[in-house]
Amino acid sequence: MTQQTVNGCMIIIGNEILSGRTQDTNLAHLSRVLNELGVRMAEARVIPDIESVIVTTLNECRKKFDYVFTSGGIGPTHDDITAACIARAFNVELIYHPDIVEVIKRRQAPPEVMESRLLMARVPAGARLIDNPTGGPQGFQMENVFVMAGVPAVMQAMASTLDQDRIKGGLPVRSRSIGAFLGESTVATALSAIQDQHPDVDVGSYPFYRPEGYGTNLVIRGTDEAELERIKEKLRLMITSFGAEPFEPDR
Amino acid sequence: MTQQTVNGCMIIIGNEILSGRTQDTNLAHLSRVLNELGVRMAEARVIPDIESVIVTTLNECRKKFDYVFTSGGIGPTHDDITAACIARAFNVELIYHPDIVEVIKRRQAPPEVMESRLLMARVPAGARLIDNPTGGPQGFQMENVFVMAGVPAVMQAMASTLDQDRIKGGLPVRSRSIGAFLGESTVATALSAIQDQHPDVDVGSYPFYRPEGYGTNLVIRGTDEAELERIKEKLRLMITSFGAEPFEPDR
Repeated sequence: MTQQTVNGCMIIIGNEILSGRTQDTNLAHLSRVLNELGVRMAEARVIPDIESVIVTTLNECRKKFDYVFTSGGIGPTHDDITAACIARAFNVELIYHPDIVEVIKRRQAPPEVMESRLLMARVPAGARLIDNPTGGPQGFQMENVFVMAGVPAVMQAMASTLDQDRIKGGLPVRSRSIGAFLGESTVATALSAIQDQHPDVDVGSYPFYRPEGYGTNLVIRGTDEAELERIKEKLRLMITSFGAEPFEPDR
Repeated sequence: MTQQTVNGCMIIIGNEILSGRTQDTNLAHLSRVLNELGVRMAEARVIPDIESVIVTTLNECRKKFDYVFTSGGIGPTHDDITAACIARAFNVELIYHPDIVEVIKRRQAPPEVMESRLLMARVPAGARLIDNPTGGPQGFQMENVFVMAGVPAVMQAMASTLDQDRIKGGLPVRSRSIGAFLGESTVATALSAIQDQHPDVDVGSYPFYRPEGYGTNLVIRGTDEAELERIKEKLRLMITSFGAEPFEPDR
């Protein structure tokens, strides 16, 4: 795709994702949220809870991409080091944000527990908060970096508050899909020709294997809905020209 | 964790993962396979089907990590450019591997379709093949880089053939888990002390929210099973000291 677009990078912070213990689902969710905001997810990285790795990755990605989104590492335990790492990456102090302190103090706790909970109020100086509709501690934004929770329900709640006032995206990225019980090799040459004719659109093919046979789902992505419809019609004709019946994939 | 270990990096290649259309499951699977081989997944990257990005990422990661594993982009269509990118990264020719050609030709097809299918036989000169127990085209290895399919069933089949003759790992990484209906903030200070006492072991805490209440799963990972058992006993005592009942998490 040659079209200039606004891009984003997600940094998933957490040993539990790298060890295979936990299946990440935040990337797919955030990608879909960003599509609607006109931001194309250009890369994602999964990194461990190691300060030097987090700082280096963050500094590399925030220069390279228009927006960076992190998930994970903002809880109250020793392995939650994201806020401190972001302060270090931006070379600013780590402060206790009064608005997060207020949210945390709404729920009473013994002094030692409260002290641990208040660790979640630490943000880099100058950070702007990201609302947390679940009622827990907020996330925060430093320049083009958005720092969110790792627990999917909380991350999704925070992501739901991102809007065009805050994220200046391009046109929303739309997609159309069409499937057929045809092998990828059967459609490869015709598909390549269609991609060449439409360089602004991303034409993808994804094989599937089902009890009733194997086939391919074709997905086109771009910002011009009329063009997507025209290409979908071309794909439909291509499929019937190979003697197969086009169908609408599940998604 | 201070212990020196053999590490790995996974590069997930595919626009469909970055767009949110497809949920990756290959990372979690491969991480668990590598744990058994004594290789710790140290980082993962999800990148688009763009030649310059694939070549740059590959050359960076193969120097930085002991082993690199890729998934995706080895099918027969225009967006399957992984093999060509790896040849370019290693600065060698792209050749048709006779053993893959043989597998592909076992199944008859019209000439144009066969031509597309044979694209899957292309590997960088000097590559060693990775068996594909599903009966489809093989993956391949170039030095410390292992190139596998993106379709999970095929990727898992290929990964099942990796063994200690091929991957020189350290001691297998083991884990123990214990859960309690205690907030992370309640256990934070005690947990941090236990982590400090055992720098060779990775102590993680993962909050959960269930209909019956919220709580925390504690996970310890390391290579010394006796030490893991001793730490698990410490965690059990810590949990009961807070008046809660320890339980075995689902995994």
